[in-house]
Amino acid sequence: MSTTPAQTGHAPQPAPAELGPAEIGVGMRLSVHPHTDRFVEVILGALDDVDAAGLTEGLTIETDDVSTYVGATVAPGEQRLASYLAALVTAASRRSAGGHVVAHVLLSRGCPGEASCDLTTTRLPGAAPVVLVPGELPAVAQWSLYPLLDGDGGAGAHMSHIEEAIATARRDGVAVAPRHYATRLAGDLSQVVATAVDAWARVGATVPHVVTHLTLSVGSPTPVQEER
Amino acid sequence: MSTTPAQTGHAPQPAPAELGPAEIGVGMRLSVHPHTDRFVEVILGALDDVDAAGLTEGLTIETDDVSTYVGATVAPGEQRLASYLAALVTAASRRSAGGHVVAHVLLSRGCPGEASCDLTTTRLPGAAPVVLVPGELPAVAQWSLYPLLDGDGGAGAHMSHIEEAIATARRDGVAVAPRHYATRLAGDLSQVVATAVDAWARVGATVPHVVTHLTLSVGSPTPVQEER
Repeated sequence: MSTTPAQTGHAPQPAPAELGPAEIGVGMRLSVHPHTDRFVEVILGALDDVDAAGLTEGLTIETDDVSTYVGATVAPGEQRLASYLAALVTAASRRSAGGHVVAHVLLSRGCPGEASCDLTTTRLPGAAPVVLVPGELPAVAQWSLYPLLDGDGGAGAHMSHIEEAIATARRDGVAVAPRHYATRLAGDLSQVVATAVDAWARVGATVPHVVTHLTLSVGSPTPVQEER
Repeated sequence: MSTTPAQTGHAPQPAPAELGPAEIGVGMRLSVHPHTDRFVEVILGALDDVDAAGLTEGLTIETDDVSTYVGATVAPGEQRLASYLAALVTAASRRSAGGHVVAHVLLSRGCPGEASCDLTTTRLPGAAPVVLVPGELPAVAQWSLYPLLDGDGGAGAHMSHIEEAIATARRDGVAVAPRHYATRLAGDLSQVVATAVDAWARVGATVPHVVTHLTLSVGSPTPVQEER
């Protein structure tokens, strides 16, 4: 037998609206390091390129003296962050004539404010896999993923999320190798960025607070270590 | 009434030996980024300086094409890592004539192998605060701390560790400011490194697996933002 609001005496509950990226706190901090005397010109030029390409739409951007905060305000947040990141590294590489550029990125989901983290596991939306156009820029990366569980895990819970993410990355075709404390990824820059962003968003659909760190290296004079 | 082993029928239990740094997995991955055309010479020279100063003793060092793994094999592991890190950044700064150098560091405790993390909360030794000689090199940093709890936390547990670490840093006299997803630290390089290493080791005395990320910046042309 179905009950109506009038029968139970409760007002009808509206379906909860899906949380937007600003409410979830979908964003990143990033820094770009061109290994050249011209680093200021390369960084400022690359930021202009990304802006001119319309890739700052739906994002809030604030720079301090260590890194730049990029927060998504309009869905799809994960896609906007991934596009911005891949385009910025590509532009910095081009503007330094293919020289050595490293970017360090912290992607965070679930702490909308600077300190508060009070999301619950309800109403956490997933995210579609990001789509990035391959740019034919080979990249190697050091990647780590941190599901920040509290009492909701169980023994080994955070490592099982990490192991699942690594297995998925391997299936997706990016070159994956274990390292102490991190995983090495290698492939086209677009593929490496998509792998890390998708894994982070996938964990974020069930774990309220999740962070991933990615150190991206392009144009290094160190020979790339071929391995899987 | 006291009972002796003979009375209870149990053999005396030897006091468990304290775990060493290699068994706990006390180590870091780090990369150094001099923003100069001479970056290869600066990095290799700085590595030589640190080696010549005897600071590689008790450490295992392995470099790949993204970063360098430094694992402590002899106690006090935290002190050895902090000394190595501060000396390497100082040497890179000196060899690039005070130019812009950024280092990115991931400090990990509790995952001795590349993937396994099976320490329990028993027998986790604490660590004495590290001692670093001030080098009069001003640094700013982006710092984040990740206590990787499983089922042993409770609501808000990981954030309470982070908030306690930030409060301690503030009391210790380093300049602390909140950022989205991270905390900004500013002070002498020695002070900034000691703050991050000590906070990470302190959490590690009760949480088996804990990671901290630190982006250290010296010699930046961006004006330092004065704030607390």
